Amino acid sequence: MRLATLRLADRTTAARLLDGTTAVELPAPDLGALLADPDWRAVAARDGARHAVTDLAPPVPRPGKIVCVGLNYRTHILEMGRELPTHPTLFAKYAEALVGPHDQIALDPASDSVDWEAELAVVIGAPVRRASETEAEAAIAGFSVLNDVTMRDWQYRTPQWLQGKTFEASTPFGPALVTPDELPGGVRPALALRCEVDGVTVQESTTADLVFDPVALVRYISAIVTLRPGDVIATGTPGGVGHARSPRQYLRDGSTVVTEVEGIGVLANTARVPATVPA
Amino acid sequence: MRLATLRLADRTTAARLLDGTTAVELPAPDLGALLADPDWRAVAARDGARHAVTDLAPPVPRPGKIVCVGLNYRTHILEMGRELPTHPTLFAKYAEALVGPHDQIALDPASDSVDWEAELAVVIGAPVRRASETEAEAAIAGFSVLNDVTMRDWQYRTPQWLQGKTFEASTPFGPALVTPDELPGGVRPALALRCEVDGVTVQESTTADLVFDPVALVRYISAIVTLRPGDVIATGTPGGVGHARSPRQYLRDGSTVVTEVEGIGVLANTARVPATVPA
Repeated sequence: MRLATLRLADRTTAARLLDGTTAVELPAPDLGALLADPDWRAVAARDGARHAVTDLAPPVPRPGKIVCVGLNYRTHILEMGRELPTHPTLFAKYAEALVGPHDQIALDPASDSVDWEAELAVVIGAPVRRASETEAEAAIAGFSVLNDVTMRDWQYRTPQWLQGKTFEASTPFGPALVTPDELPGGVRPALALRCEVDGVTVQESTTADLVFDPVALVRYISAIVTLRPGDVIATGTPGGVGHARSPRQYLRDGSTVVTEVEGIGVLANTARVPATVPA
Repeated sequence: MRLATLRLADRTTAARLLDGTTAVELPAPDLGALLADPDWRAVAARDGARHAVTDLAPPVPRPGKIVCVGLNYRTHILEMGRELPTHPTLFAKYAEALVGPHDQIALDPASDSVDWEAELAVVIGAPVRRASETEAEAAIAGFSVLNDVTMRDWQYRTPQWLQGKTFEASTPFGPALVTPDELPGGVRPALALRCEVDGVTVQESTTADLVFDPVALVRYISAIVTLRPGDVIATGTPGGVGHARSPRQYLRDGSTVVTEVEGIGVLANTARVPATVPA
């Protein structure tokens, strides 16, 4: 199944996508609320009102937790001359950072180094704590695409990255949640991942190259804290970010960013300084 | 006013404390829900059913965001031979980490270095983004006490601290939210802060020593992301943590931890390995 959160004229709704243009309304205001129903897989298969797919919200608009992973692509770590990590590096992003798959990425005049990070996102579908391998597999509702857009100047001005990672309306997420049965590799999907900025491919890898795969991440994080339905794990990004280029390259007002994970979908966003920002 | 969230037999409720033993029920299931009402100050002053104060939840049981601050006590930074920071170091903690003011601190067999960090907590009372000085002052609902209990081994096993900072049921928070009008210094309160472990005072300072005071933190964080009612800012801890002692000292099964901010209240918690943890 391909599930999403549609923006309608006066509300949002959880929906099952039939194809790129039509969706079936499901009985929940968004996919986060749907996933909180222990019976969500059955509910998501129901029939309902049809809607044209014209405006998509982030699939889970307000995850309780967004857990991001750093340094997780094997080839990129090795080419940087580093050793493979023994534990995943985790950091957070707050829900206010999320935007939909075709929304604008909000640039901020306070940052002059806004960078891209194409990522596979895991969405949790059941509460899980101290998960075994089997429990971790069962707790994964599906996968989505996320661009962990990062204000590098703010990321590195202190030892902790959070402040560069959680700018309001900076992080495209979507377009849909795709259940593991639809993907080669299932809960350990092997999918091409790419990012394109202003028409040029800047990142290109495969999720088969993850050091800590989705199941390993659910196990690791749930050893620390309970993962709950709608929680999101952003699994890390491969090489090719703008900050590591020579010369460095960042998003500008009007930059177009395309983020794609094969078999899941495409985020297409334009970076803009919002009109409401005081000069 | 002194506001709290009471645990009753079958539910929780927001409440106004009349003294240490009696509270007035307020029309919200917890203080987070109360603060979401733009008129919360008037609602909180109402009369209602009386309850004995026997069991307190975290004042805001599920904050949308918990933003923690590192390296924020002037004297401690200078005595470490460091320069005062120009920007606050921010990191996150998830809501699942919180426990009430008299609950057990959950030790985890996976960590052998569980440490204390007594902190003043700021609770937000209105949505605020890119706050001016005046807006930041007005957005502070009040103050509480938080002990940012930290698994040092997990904190330092990767470059990012999150995983050592957000263990389930590790972080005492409470006992009440005290509005700024009740405190010397108001929204920049100058209050003695202390932590006692097994009857020995281990941290002792004053919140007047903060490099970035509550108003400065609201301004800084809201330049990044919207702060919302019920969000919590843990403002950092002074010297005296166990990891910096010689020899190092950590919490053990049965350790008692008393965390106090003058004029706000006392957290009294016992560290325990929960019975439900698999051996």
